[in-house]
Amino acid sequence: MNDDTFQRSLELHRRTHGKIGTQLRVKLESRDDLALAYSPGVARPCEVIANDPAQSFELTCRGNTIAVLTDGSAVLGLGDIGATAAMPVMEGKAALFKHFAGVDAVPLCVDVASSQQLIELARHIAPSFAGINLEDIAAPRCFVVEDSLQDLGIPVFHDDQHGTAIVLLAALENGAKVVGKRIDDMNIVINGAGAAGSAIARILQCAGHDPETSRCFAAGEVLVCDSKGIVSPERADLNPFKRDLLAYTNSYQRSGTLREALEGADAFIGVSKANLLTADDIRTMAPDSIVLAMANPIPEIMPDEAKAGGAAIVGTGRSDFPNQVNNVLCFPGIFRGALDARAPKITAEMKLAAVRALASAVAQPTPDQILPDPLDLSVARIVAAAVAEAAISKV
Amino acid sequence: MNDDTFQRSLELHRRTHGKIGTQLRVKLESRDDLALAYSPGVARPCEVIANDPAQSFELTCRGNTIAVLTDGSAVLGLGDIGATAAMPVMEGKAALFKHFAGVDAVPLCVDVASSQQLIELARHIAPSFAGINLEDIAAPRCFVVEDSLQDLGIPVFHDDQHGTAIVLLAALENGAKVVGKRIDDMNIVINGAGAAGSAIARILQCAGHDPETSRCFAAGEVLVCDSKGIVSPERADLNPFKRDLLAYTNSYQRSGTLREALEGADAFIGVSKANLLTADDIRTMAPDSIVLAMANPIPEIMPDEAKAGGAAIVGTGRSDFPNQVNNVLCFPGIFRGALDARAPKITAEMKLAAVRALASAVAQPTPDQILPDPLDLSVARIVAAAVAEAAISKV
Repeated sequence: MNDDTFQRSLELHRRTHGKIGTQLRVKLESRDDLALAYSPGVARPCEVIANDPAQSFELTCRGNTIAVLTDGSAVLGLGDIGATAAMPVMEGKAALFKHFAGVDAVPLCVDVASSQQLIELARHIAPSFAGINLEDIAAPRCFVVEDSLQDLGIPVFHDDQHGTAIVLLAALENGAKVVGKRIDDMNIVINGAGAAGSAIARILQCAGHDPETSRCFAAGEVLVCDSKGIVSPERADLNPFKRDLLAYTNSYQRSGTLREALEGADAFIGVSKANLLTADDIRTMAPDSIVLAMANPIPEIMPDEAKAGGAAIVGTGRSDFPNQVNNVLCFPGIFRGALDARAPKITAEMKLAAVRALASAVAQPTPDQILPDPLDLSVARIVAAAVAEAAISKV
Repeated sequence: MNDDTFQRSLELHRRTHGKIGTQLRVKLESRDDLALAYSPGVARPCEVIANDPAQSFELTCRGNTIAVLTDGSAVLGLGDIGATAAMPVMEGKAALFKHFAGVDAVPLCVDVASSQQLIELARHIAPSFAGINLEDIAAPRCFVVEDSLQDLGIPVFHDDQHGTAIVLLAALENGAKVVGKRIDDMNIVINGAGAAGSAIARILQCAGHDPETSRCFAAGEVLVCDSKGIVSPERADLNPFKRDLLAYTNSYQRSGTLREALEGADAFIGVSKANLLTADDIRTMAPDSIVLAMANPIPEIMPDEAKAGGAAIVGTGRSDFPNQVNNVLCFPGIFRGALDARAPKITAEMKLAAVRALASAVAQPTPDQILPDPLDLSVARIVAAAVAEAAISKV
């Protein structure tokens, strides 16, 4: 990553005045074109939809269009910068949706004062969209909003939670193959108990997969840490969302610091802050440890230092090191698959199908390649096909 | 208009699955492309906007993007068909915005239960847009919503009111030139007291324009009729919005039927229903009358019959007769001009500038050409330039 990336990004944005726009998919050259695409002909598709609202997915742009919806409350590492300032991220995401999966995505940065307002807004706009990608919404609001909208009839998916969890679990699966461990035997430490950390802890309940029985099984022992250490039953400071984590993590009811949690662990998953760990910390982990340090742009530990501490595999969020754990490997394909299957929600089965498709997209995992290249356009197709199949077989 | 226009429109919609989509305006081919358009580089434009929200118009798609917002309560002649079924019209409109003026328009069909909810929704989404085109919202909700949102800092414009009024006044101005009358001497009857009729009555207050003094003046006598006849002070059934019309119409406090209103009138403007008038009704009007019969798809009186009754000029909303009065002559240019000038609202001056630009776009009006061709791409440019100039000179 060049130091001038930020300056060059600003220059790009100033030059292009944004990264997406609309385009026509019909001709408007003649009177007849206008009569068919607009008045008076357009009355007929309106009537058909009025009689059968499901036809809106076939007869309008709705079927291929999602909203990328944020309140700007947790944008990148910048925090609560508000709706207006969140737009560069949301339209960047919309551009990625189009480029990688042909999904038309509309960035919607909304100025709301409460979870309830955001929920109501999503309900109001739902008739225009085939799905809603929630983005950069602070915890715990993101949990409340996503949960409340699962009955909407179109997929509502908070990518910072599940997209991150899906890509990380695929990385962990392939990493386990490389080091010859089984996920259900591994001790895993997650640092960060917000949106991403919680979703990772949750998906790890179904981390392993037995192809013979088609059943999933939980990872070994999972500890989640926040800035105050291990999330444990004896802590009085846990909010309800962190307390929920205790139902499926920390089965031995351990307490202690992140460093204490790391001792003997097989994998570290960081969704937290820069420069938290040293090589010495990694040395306390089990042999052949896997370190996925996602803090951006500066990871919890730099790859060289993690390797020096004995890590067998290191992944980060960065494109300038091997094993980039990037949500773009997931979200285009998962929405493409959901839209193709006209799925009313994104189920656990669909998420796990995405994990397995993503892991299988690397034919022969190596320490320096546990995930596909984020630029690889075939990944979204593979993920989409698996997600659509899982959606349909569920029905 | 072919009888099969409706069926062919349905087939077009079923084939294309909608009429608009998104497109990328940046490359996403390399890691560097991704780093600039998305993470991590995108953090810089976010920070710049967080410090100066006005930069969002420069650094993101916002500056060229408007919402086409409806609640689906008054769609075409179909009525209250709801948000989902309104989409074919809204995305058609979005397509026209792009084709005629390069404006990126996002169709937003929202399921709301009250004016207040629609107002709040518009306020919530405002950070994502440079303007809001309200569309197909029933009266009187459309008045309340538009009025309440004039402080939003971006233009909020109900096209069914003002777009219609602007194009009709341009038609009337050129029509008056052709028949050698002055608008301030004309008796004008508007049939229809909803969104369009009210806006027409309002803009007629400033119908004439003295180029020497740059002042505008009202049309002659204006009568508005609804289904119960002339809107008059003695009627007890008028809602507050219709009552407001009395402040600037019907200065002689006349009562009576539409037919009585027409006697001696110089112009009839219909925004009402099919087949209301006959040649005999037109015969009671003043010589060289102008008939603009906008009911769609079947006008208040067919052109041949109006001509038989003595009308000198007839316009309709239809493309298969001369003088098509079509909002597409106005809305692309008026928003293009407002966005180019970064206008915080669309003022009366900007609307009148649009009227004059539109009228002047026909070099030599004739009975069969009082308006430009709706397919003429130069019209939006002419209107936009005039609107932007009026916006800037106002500041």
